[in-house]
Order: sequence, then structure tokens, then C-alpha cells
Amino acid sequence: MNLDALYSELTLKNSAKMVLLVLDGLGDIATKEQNYLTPLEAAVTPNLDALAQQGAQGRMIPVAPGITPGSGPGHLGLFGYDPLEFQVGRGVIEALGLGLELRGGDVAARANFCTLDAKGIVTDRRAGRIETEVCEELCALLAAKIKKIGDAEVIIKAGKGHRFVVLFRGKGLEGPLTDADPHREGLAIPQVEPVDKKSAKAKKAAELIQKFYAAALPLLAKKKPANGFLMRGIAHQPEIPTFQERYQMRPGCLAVYPMYKGLAQLVGMTKMEGPQTIAEQFERYVAEYDNYDYFFIHYKYTDMYGEDGNFAAKKKAIEDLDAALPILLSKRPDVLAVTGDHSTPCAAKGHSWHPQPVLLVSELSGWDKLQRFTETGANSGSLGVFDAKFLIRLMQANARMFDKFGA
Amino acid sequence: MNLDALYSELTLKNSAKMVLLVLDGLGDIATKEQNYLTPLEAAVTPNLDALAQQGAQGRMIPVAPGITPGSGPGHLGLFGYDPLEFQVGRGVIEALGLGLELRGGDVAARANFCTLDAKGIVTDRRAGRIETEVCEELCALLAAKIKKIGDAEVIIKAGKGHRFVVLFRGKGLEGPLTDADPHREGLAIPQVEPVDKKSAKAKKAAELIQKFYAAALPLLAKKKPANGFLMRGIAHQPEIPTFQERYQMRPGCLAVYPMYKGLAQLVGMTKMEGPQTIAEQFERYVAEYDNYDYFFIHYKYTDMYGEDGNFAAKKKAIEDLDAALPILLSKRPDVLAVTGDHSTPCAAKGHSWHPQPVLLVSELSGWDKLQRFTETGANSGSLGVFDAKFLIRLMQANARMFDKFGA
Repeated sequence: MNLDALYSELTLKNSAKMVLLVLDGLGDIATKEQNYLTPLEAAVTPNLDALAQQGAQGRMIPVAPGITPGSGPGHLGLFGYDPLEFQVGRGVIEALGLGLELRGGDVAARANFCTLDAKGIVTDRRAGRIETEVCEELCALLAAKIKKIGDAEVIIKAGKGHRFVVLFRGKGLEGPLTDADPHREGLAIPQVEPVDKKSAKAKKAAELIQKFYAAALPLLAKKKPANGFLMRGIAHQPEIPTFQERYQMRPGCLAVYPMYKGLAQLVGMTKMEGPQTIAEQFERYVAEYDNYDYFFIHYKYTDMYGEDGNFAAKKKAIEDLDAALPILLSKRPDVLAVTGDHSTPCAAKGHSWHPQPVLLVSELSGWDKLQRFTETGANSGSLGVFDAKFLIRLMQANARMFDKFGA
Repeated sequence: MNLDALYSELTLKNSAKMVLLVLDGLGDIATKEQNYLTPLEAAVTPNLDALAQQGAQGRMIPVAPGITPGSGPGHLGLFGYDPLEFQVGRGVIEALGLGLELRGGDVAARANFCTLDAKGIVTDRRAGRIETEVCEELCALLAAKIKKIGDAEVIIKAGKGHRFVVLFRGKGLEGPLTDADPHREGLAIPQVEPVDKKSAKAKKAAELIQKFYAAALPLLAKKKPANGFLMRGIAHQPEIPTFQERYQMRPGCLAVYPMYKGLAQLVGMTKMEGPQTIAEQFERYVAEYDNYDYFFIHYKYTDMYGEDGNFAAKKKAIEDLDAALPILLSKRPDVLAVTGDHSTPCAAKGHSWHPQPVLLVSELSGWDKLQRFTETGANSGSLGVFDAKFLIRLMQANARMFDKFGA
């Protein structure tokens, strides 16, 4: 039996409020350099401690044992979508993050300007990291001159620095395609190809991109240093059942960074724009309490400092969030889950596969007799080690959103 | 590879004795109201403590994360049958519980007498809760007058109070059907319909039930207050591989309440009738030690008091069982598992999805260094958090019933 179908069948819509608070890359590992404490263990977190003294803990496998997820699979899992079943290309995520409204079947590419020599060899993959204003000018030029390729509409949107996004809206297109990026200097831009050679739609998309290059490169030929561009993560927007349909809740997103807004939008969450700090995000949650049933609140800095390998800053980021928590708790949700989308150990200076700790607090969560929310404590929590895609099901259960199965 | 096929292939029949001791709804959660102790943690259990000091612990997910099971799925899981694969309707369980010998394909309905007004509107869904004797008289009347509908045999058996069961034994019948029950007063009895509209067999069963109503209602027309009846959980007996075949053990059931006897019978266990108290059940186990290899011993009261939200009584029920344990241990089984079929937290006043704790004791279980058998302790036990359907496989392994897999 299909488990998602069973969950849907058992779902009882109600007025419970729930919050998924994601400290991006929260999970970490205990190493000798840091006296065998993780940032979460070393941080002073009176408010998280108080929650831990009412909640259940566990650890979550983001995708599968040993698999390190990007932000896409990490968040899709948290939203209850199996990241192996629902794969989203980076181009799509970037496009969503820049606020482009994608439609099913749109093919999106993450692009950035680069420098080419006279023979078309890439000499600087980032075109000297041109300013955002320059990027915007170049994108405006391309957009003015190239509105269509064949029957496909072309939408170009500048991002930060040398980055931009290209969207192709046409019939019968499909990704993923290989990258138009040699991934190092000294080589020419490779032609894109369908990842699945048998897909006629991907073949059509690949031809389209080659035609786009043929039309666009001459327009940039005289520009310096940005006389070329690379394209990566070329994929189409997959058909994903909307969050609201799937879970019978009105979802709202409180994220600051584009990618996370994009991921939320991908599953149909409404974006609440404006807040820049975690305190502002929590204040907005309080203000919007009645307008949504499920709040996705995203906090970037734990991941950012983990990527830098900056233990002190990651610890401080946790403490900063903890200090703002009373705002969230002033309007307490029925179910609160605090976790990461994956681990970003300082020692790894990047995402990792280590199961992230999760804290779940509700009237029915029970208390695991753990005084604090930590990786080590979570190891002996009542939730055990489980696949991240089930977190939302546990949240729904704690919100009494499921009928009994069988007599 | 099919895992059940692998287990079968590796099974070595031997003379090991094992006991599955089910404290129904045992699992609970720690809440502030009860000083953050569960009934199992608060109970004084010297005999369970002694077992805990020799055994392994863990927690079991009855069906899937967040899913709250009824008794049917809960027990099928404990018996090693995937509750998602083997679904059993309430009518079937009730029929089995009343001692009816079902055959594959029989369609059973849980029924009860009700009161109808002159227009056929249900005015009392329980017919004033008539006495069992009245129910028996009415069932005898119906059974005498209606032996067949078309080519299908009709078997009617009275239960307690206003409840009874109707069994249809014919060719080409199938459930599940929608309920012939408006589920509240003030409405007429709805016509039953196949849940799967495409099933010709279910359509035939639905027509049969409408004909049964047409034949039966006139016989009750003059009765007061029971001049009508409702039918629910209409389903057919699924084909389930027998326990003995599947596990190469002779299984015996020591349950007091009908539903659990019915569930045991469904998988082909032999019912040992007579014992009413847990001490009597344990005594009977000792007396029958040589006649079975696997004893399912069911204790209802932990669930019953959990449903009432009566913490003190649930705790006392655990202590009562503990006090009787020395009888069981006077003839020690090779493998003993103590667990619940699900959790019934006092705070929830009903079944829940929280993984139930399990204690497994055998010569090869090892000791997890836990002094007591508790939910909190079980969180860090060597069995981890696992699907309940694997418990019997662990029991078999502990009984040395599996050959090595591979060289």
C-alpha cells in the first residue's frame, strides 16, 4: 500500500498550528579540537533547554545513509516529499529564489557570466566577479534582444554578482541536461546534452540551449570581462503535489534567502516577505498566526558558519536564535519542530550526511528526560533515528491530524 | 528479494518455547501532570525489573511513523504480518471474537440493534442499550427466518448488549463496503456501497446486504425499542498465511477478550479458553507448556485504563501483572517478549502512534545495562526503534530458529 495515500486517507483537517523551525545545517560532530562538544552542545541556550524539557528528540536521515544533501533535497525531505522521488534541479531552485513564477514544464538554468579568450576558452569562470549592476545591465541587454528561441519564450533575470537565471518556457521541454560549464578554467564551454539520451523532450531542450548560446554570445563579444556565460543545473520544474492538498494545511514561509523561498514556493507555500532577522521572522509569525496553519521558518547562519568552519560563529548563531525564541513562544504553536535540513559540521566545512538532531514539542510529544537539545542527547530520544520525510507526519500526528488506522 | 521468503528459507524448526506477552496499550508519554513519569516508570515492578536486568530493550513503530493503529493492525504487526499488507475489517474481527469460524471470502459485518421512527429515521443508535438476553432473542428470530439470501448463507450471532454480527457466506463476495449506519441520530440508514466502485464482488455483497435489510426489517417492525439495526465495518476475511506455516511453530492464544482471540484465530492460533485473570492465563501457560511453541498472552487492562486517562489504574494494572509474573517464570520460556500492541497514553485517552517499548529476554538477548523496563530506558536499548512486524523475527533469531544467511 502506498503510504502517502494512507496518510491522506487518515488526515483529519483541524485548526492546529505548527511551526517547522529550520536552523540550516544545524547538526555537527564532536571533535577533539572543540573539546568534543558540538556548537549546539557548547552554546548557551536557555530557551531551547526549556523546550527540550518538554519535548521528544531524535535524529533524522536527510536522504539515505551516507548521502549528503544539497538544500533542495534537504528541505523537500523536511516538507515530507521523498527527495529521491522528487528531484529538483538547481536551476529551478535558483529561478524560484529570484522570484520567477515557474510553470510545470519550464526549463531553468543557473547561469553566470565568465571570461572567454579569442578561441572560446574559459579564462575566468566568474568574469572577475563583476558587480551586480553590471550583471543587471548585461541581462537587460540579452533580454531585450532575445525574447524567443523558436517557439520557446526566454526569460532572463539577474541575480547577485555575476549570477543570473535563464528560463525557457515552451512546449515539450524537459531536463535535466549536462552543464554548459567545464567546471574549471582552460577549457571551452561544453555543449549541453540530455542526461537521459532517450528523452526527446530533453533533446529538444538541449538544442534550444545551443541556439540560445548562438544568439547570445555575439551580443557579449565586445564586453569586458564578461564576454561569455556558463549554465548549470539545467532542469525542468517537476510536477509536485502542493503542500496544502497533501497535508490539508495552509503553509506559509518565513525565509530570508532566495533559495529557501524558492523551495517553499515549489511546494506551494505562500511567501511572507520582509523580515530580515530571526526576531523579525518570529514577530511576523506572531502577526500572521491566524493566516496559516504551518509555518516554515528558515535560519541560514548555522549553515553559513558551518561552511566556513567557524565554530565560534556557528555557536553564536545558535545563541542568537535562542535569544529570539521567546518571541515565537509568545504565541505558542500546537506543534513545534526544531531541526536542520542536514548537518554542516565545522570540521567538514560543508554539508554532510550525519543525521541532524530534531526536537519535537507538543502536548502529546512527551518528555524524553533530556535536559537539553543536543546531538548526543537526541541519540537516546524517543523518536529514534528516522527518515526526515516522516517528520511532517509526526508533526501531524502530534497535532491530532490523523484518524486511527484499522479497527 | 522478498524478506518473508528469506526468513522462511532460513527457518530451522526446533523445540524452543517463546512467549509474547502483550500489555495492550502499554506505551505512554511523560507529562508534567504525572511528574514526567509514565505509568510503567511509576509502577513498582520487581519482577519486570529482574527481567530488564537480563534483557534487551527497544521501541517499536506499530505501522508507520505517526500512524495510530487499531487493535487489528497493532496485533497483526506483533504477529509478524505487515499491517499495511494484511488489512482486516472490523466486522471480521468482531465475528472471529464471537467464536465464528470464518472461511476465506466470508463477508462479516459488525451490527447492532437500533430504534427507528415511523419514517425510518434512527432515533436511538443503540436501541436503549437492550440487555444481552433481548439481543439473543432477536438474533434467534432473525436466524430462524433468514437462513439464506439468494445463494449466500447467512449466519447471525448475538454479542453483548445490543451488538451482534452477521456473516454472509457465498461465492464471489468481497468487502469493504460503506457503513449502513448514519453515525448519528436523526438520519435514515444509508444504503451500503462498495468502497472500491470497480469491484464486481463488492457490488454483489452490497446488493446482498440490501436484500438482507429488506428481509430482516419487517421481522423487527413490531419490536420495541429494537425495531431496526445498523451495520458497520463490512469486510471479507482476507487470505492470510497461517502462523504455523509461516513460522514453523505451534501457536496458542491466551486472551480473555473476544477481539484478541479473534485476531489470534485469524492467523490460525489455537485458542485456550477459560482463564479470566492474568494469573490464570500464566497458570494455563505452564500447564500447556508442552503443547505449543509460541504463546500469545494478552492483557487488556493497561489499554482500558489508558483510554480512561486513569494513570493510577494503568500503573496498578502493570503492578498486578508484575505480581503474577513469577507464575509465568516458573516455567521459563526460551524467549520472552514483553510489549504492547501500541501506546495508549493517559494524556491522549486513546491509542496513539508513539512507539511502544519492548523487552526481549533470552539466553542470547544480552543485557542493555538498563535496570528497569521503561519507555525512557528503551530509547537507548540495543534493539533501537524498529517496525513491530520484525519483533517475531527477533524472537525467532533469539530462539536460534534461523540459519546463517550466505557463506
